[in-house]
Amino acid sequence: MKVELLPDERVDMLYNDDVHIIQSKNVFSFSLDAVLLANFAQPRKGGRGLTVDLGTGNGAVALFMAHKVTGDIVGVEIQERLADMAKRSVMMNDLTEKIKIINADMRDVFVDIRPGSADMVVSNPPYFSVDNEQTIIHENEHYAIARHEIMADLELVTYTAKKLLKNKAHFYMVHRPDRLFEILATLQKNHLSPKRIQFVYPKAGEPANVLLIDAIKDGKLTGAQILPPIITHNRDDTYTDAVWSIYEGRQQHE
Amino acid sequence: MKVELLPDERVDMLYNDDVHIIQSKNVFSFSLDAVLLANFAQPRKGGRGLTVDLGTGNGAVALFMAHKVTGDIVGVEIQERLADMAKRSVMMNDLTEKIKIINADMRDVFVDIRPGSADMVVSNPPYFSVDNEQTIIHENEHYAIARHEIMADLELVTYTAKKLLKNKAHFYMVHRPDRLFEILATLQKNHLSPKRIQFVYPKAGEPANVLLIDAIKDGKLTGAQILPPIITHNRDDTYTDAVWSIYEGRQQHE
Repeated sequence: MKVELLPDERVDMLYNDDVHIIQSKNVFSFSLDAVLLANFAQPRKGGRGLTVDLGTGNGAVALFMAHKVTGDIVGVEIQERLADMAKRSVMMNDLTEKIKIINADMRDVFVDIRPGSADMVVSNPPYFSVDNEQTIIHENEHYAIARHEIMADLELVTYTAKKLLKNKAHFYMVHRPDRLFEILATLQKNHLSPKRIQFVYPKAGEPANVLLIDAIKDGKLTGAQILPPIITHNRDDTYTDAVWSIYEGRQQHE
Repeated sequence: MKVELLPDERVDMLYNDDVHIIQSKNVFSFSLDAVLLANFAQPRKGGRGLTVDLGTGNGAVALFMAHKVTGDIVGVEIQERLADMAKRSVMMNDLTEKIKIINADMRDVFVDIRPGSADMVVSNPPYFSVDNEQTIIHENEHYAIARHEIMADLELVTYTAKKLLKNKAHFYMVHRPDRLFEILATLQKNHLSPKRIQFVYPKAGEPANVLLIDAIKDGKLTGAQILPPIITHNRDDTYTDAVWSIYEGRQQHE
């Protein structure tokens, strides 16, 4: 389907050009983290049922997930401009039957989605606490809300995911490893038991900068598996083959 | 110094033959984990002061640490036969001035070492909880005590480390990633704040099987750094170059 682009918008193509995403540098661009999250999420039951993407931004994760699940996807985004871009991207990809974008505060998501009805929740939430106002001042409002915990914080995202999920269903989140303890504590407080953790390193020999976590609702708190590391860049700053495979939509080998 | 070997004992040499260690397959052999722990520990203040090795076994970690610190080292081991092997290894390496081996229960360590006097505590404790009796039955007593939490568990090791350490001094431990949550919770309960975590993977593409953790006494609970991954084996089961470097006593690149 043809859709209209605003003057500052462009279309990026991923998964061997199977996925078209409307981007705008002025308001938001999805990052590698979104791609890693969609790759990390593992649909159960053949991908049937409902997938919810909390804080979908311009819909990147929802659009990537459309290639992994057979059921419906709902993307929730509080920013009107981003939700609008996401909606138009869904149209552009002819996925209006499969993906629904809701422009709403996460707190109000239960108006549209029944608690305990989701088979999977994914989220690439804001990473930074708001204790550093200096940083936020230098960003425009769209970026600030996407990157800092202004409208939704770890606690709200986790609580909302828990409430949306069916029992024993999975929550997949991408976040920052320097918040590992807080993430584990928040998941446990919400009866989400971490099952798989994967650390992503920017380069060989450098500390991890991204954390992928898979938690199950009301699962037993036993040990989580620490999956093989993903290294995203070669010494010369180009993407590693592992990342290209993921970008091209090939399943990561484990 | 020449020392006597029992019939079932042999001498292994590491760090380019700088370290000689008495081993016996019948009672205990140190593992790669001990070598990784000694490599991971980072002495402060030029390595001055007291280092304590809790559950030193045949003294492997204490002997490795002797090459990293200038101060004294005390190794504590509850098993008489292992403590005796450790003592003879210390003599064989002419390190009796630097390393003292105490044959004691960790609970009684404060008879010999004043609380709050250690600049660093290292430990390669038993990894397995005792809930699986079946496993233990098939091991001899020496191995069972070294591998299972029969005489000392995570809680006791962590509490003892905390009590031994000076304020802001570091505790270095090697353990299993499947006990990550328990380790973090136990450290936090004992006011030890994790600062650096390193996951060790047996092979590329496989989940981590070893966890190295560095925690500081009475430090702030902020984010820990996830250090670059260590992969120990090549596809053909030989050690990787990274492991050979560590075995030869060269510092790991970070």
